[in-house]
Amino acid sequence: MDQNPPLTFPVCQTAIDWAAGPYDDKTLQQKRGAIDALLSCRSTDRFVFTTSGAEAISQTLFSAYLEVARLTGKTHFVTTAIEEAATLQMMQRLGGLGCTIHVVPVTRDGIIDLKQIESLITRKIALVSMSMASGLTGVIQPYKEIADIARAKGALIHLDAAHALGRFHFAWHETGADYMTFDGGLIHAPKATGGLVASASAPLAPLIVGGNRWRGGPTDPERELALYGAAHAAHLYLDAMSLEGARLRDQFETQLVAAIPGAAVLYQDQLRSPNVSCVLLPRTHQETLLYYLQPKTPILTQIGGHYAPHLKQLLMKQGVDPTTAARTLSVVFHRMVSSGDVTEFVEALRVQVTRLEPLTKGLAL
Amino acid sequence: MDQNPPLTFPVCQTAIDWAAGPYDDKTLQQKRGAIDALLSCRSTDRFVFTTSGAEAISQTLFSAYLEVARLTGKTHFVTTAIEEAATLQMMQRLGGLGCTIHVVPVTRDGIIDLKQIESLITRKIALVSMSMASGLTGVIQPYKEIADIARAKGALIHLDAAHALGRFHFAWHETGADYMTFDGGLIHAPKATGGLVASASAPLAPLIVGGNRWRGGPTDPERELALYGAAHAAHLYLDAMSLEGARLRDQFETQLVAAIPGAAVLYQDQLRSPNVSCVLLPRTHQETLLYYLQPKTPILTQIGGHYAPHLKQLLMKQGVDPTTAARTLSVVFHRMVSSGDVTEFVEALRVQVTRLEPLTKGLAL
Repeated sequence: MDQNPPLTFPVCQTAIDWAAGPYDDKTLQQKRGAIDALLSCRSTDRFVFTTSGAEAISQTLFSAYLEVARLTGKTHFVTTAIEEAATLQMMQRLGGLGCTIHVVPVTRDGIIDLKQIESLITRKIALVSMSMASGLTGVIQPYKEIADIARAKGALIHLDAAHALGRFHFAWHETGADYMTFDGGLIHAPKATGGLVASASAPLAPLIVGGNRWRGGPTDPERELALYGAAHAAHLYLDAMSLEGARLRDQFETQLVAAIPGAAVLYQDQLRSPNVSCVLLPRTHQETLLYYLQPKTPILTQIGGHYAPHLKQLLMKQGVDPTTAARTLSVVFHRMVSSGDVTEFVEALRVQVTRLEPLTKGLAL
Repeated sequence: MDQNPPLTFPVCQTAIDWAAGPYDDKTLQQKRGAIDALLSCRSTDRFVFTTSGAEAISQTLFSAYLEVARLTGKTHFVTTAIEEAATLQMMQRLGGLGCTIHVVPVTRDGIIDLKQIESLITRKIALVSMSMASGLTGVIQPYKEIADIARAKGALIHLDAAHALGRFHFAWHETGADYMTFDGGLIHAPKATGGLVASASAPLAPLIVGGNRWRGGPTDPERELALYGAAHAAHLYLDAMSLEGARLRDQFETQLVAAIPGAAVLYQDQLRSPNVSCVLLPRTHQETLLYYLQPKTPILTQIGGHYAPHLKQLLMKQGVDPTTAARTLSVVFHRMVSSGDVTEFVEALRVQVTRLEPLTKGLAL
């Protein structure tokens, strides 16, 4: 049973509206401006429309392999323990192709270990690939500092913006990164959309070849326009998302702790994305809870796995004991969530925890 | 100016109907049966839904590189001069990665040179990649014989069914091939759909990683179901397509030769796909003709380029002189073409040729 499919955000109306066409090249090029605006792209940056964040990541890492690792002496890659499947599996592949892969651990604060990563980034590094924020804990990573370190050592840097884009403000050209990737589904575009931005100087190669320069095969103008529409809406609502998202998250956390004795909020003192809350629940195993928790609410819950790290294992790596780690839940608030939804959701959580807690009395939880 | 974009077939009603969902796993799995039926798949075959034929080809060739070329002494690949951009560009990439690529020429008859390919297929060959039929000339290739030769020498064989699927009957498991790829757009599915079938024993690796085993990233159930719907319709209409397609093509060729003095049909004596006709027109340059020929007809015209070989260059490689080769046009009839459309199209061709012929009097055509 797949209890942990990728998060499914509802598709926003702008994405639906824009997807209706027209599909001529001029319209596509003009609407693509929404991506430039959302990411603060420079006119020289290259944008590749992909069918997912996973594809964008695969292409980025493969580009660094083909154009850097194979052509120079730099065959080492650095990534982090919070990365999702695409990054980790692609790194594994590059390892199989003769590269050396370094995976930087995350500290108790949910932050990439800066000292470790600094010591790992040497002149041998082709690329540093990291998430701007963890999708499971919401903790924002020191991507600017790491990009600076990477640049100083001549390493390329790829920022995975999947859980940052549309959540909090950043200008891509100020991050100092060479590549940025994201998944359309996480900014209210339809599934199977995504994007890759590469600076003018970043080595880039197509992953899918055949025809167009950076991505072969026919493209789907409907999906492409839907992504641009979602980017447009994400840009318009960015300030609101930062403020209202954080307000709803704080409302959730306050209500949760009041409603469920023993519940706690993790990483509350860290700089966090406004739309994610990682919480600890009393004596309730996360998988059981997720199974029973099927509230009719736009609020999404996740425990990782499949496409992302397992939340339990991620927390254990960050120093949380196994028993505690197994009782956590990651909660995601997006643009279509209201204050009333949060109140209802806390009640649904309380009902399930109250129901499940006695059942786990005899278990080593 | 891009005068030669990929062919755009209209999307069939079954594809639109099936795309409406539902999108649960059970429905997806059940509807996928349409692919099995159309291709005569075995239950052990693996099917990967891709976003184009180009992606399916990229994945196939990359799989053979990763799983065969890198792990064994077999680093040679064989392909042919009629292949489209995805195959040729991927072969070029494998060449850059240290493999040796052999491109087999095509004879005057529009057929892959069997003697040459037989001499090239040695124990060093990892994979033979070839089209079952040329999309430009319609000539069906001796894929069964070549698959036999490849198998006898321990080489894998990939058949590109892009211009064969839904055109004429074949059972994939009788071809002896290890891989078969196709593009959904060419069987009346929406653009940005495609597929890869691999036999149980064929080495397979994902191209896009991250999550699902053979293709990472979230999938788009709407597009996937649309492809299955198109496959279902293609299967239902296969006999009709073979007969009616050939009838319309023959009608076109008879009417064309009667209407335009000096017009001729190329490869008429060869075994051809029922839906393609490659014709020679008097004193009319193909690019000029294509530019002026914008008839309101479902009949598609092409001269290659961009994603496919240039028709002119392909014919020159097949021994046609440059002047003749520059006066050819490839005409594609699909399921939505009627007898009346053909008559109208011949008249449109006649009008344009009559109009353009005097303009080219002074040119070396």
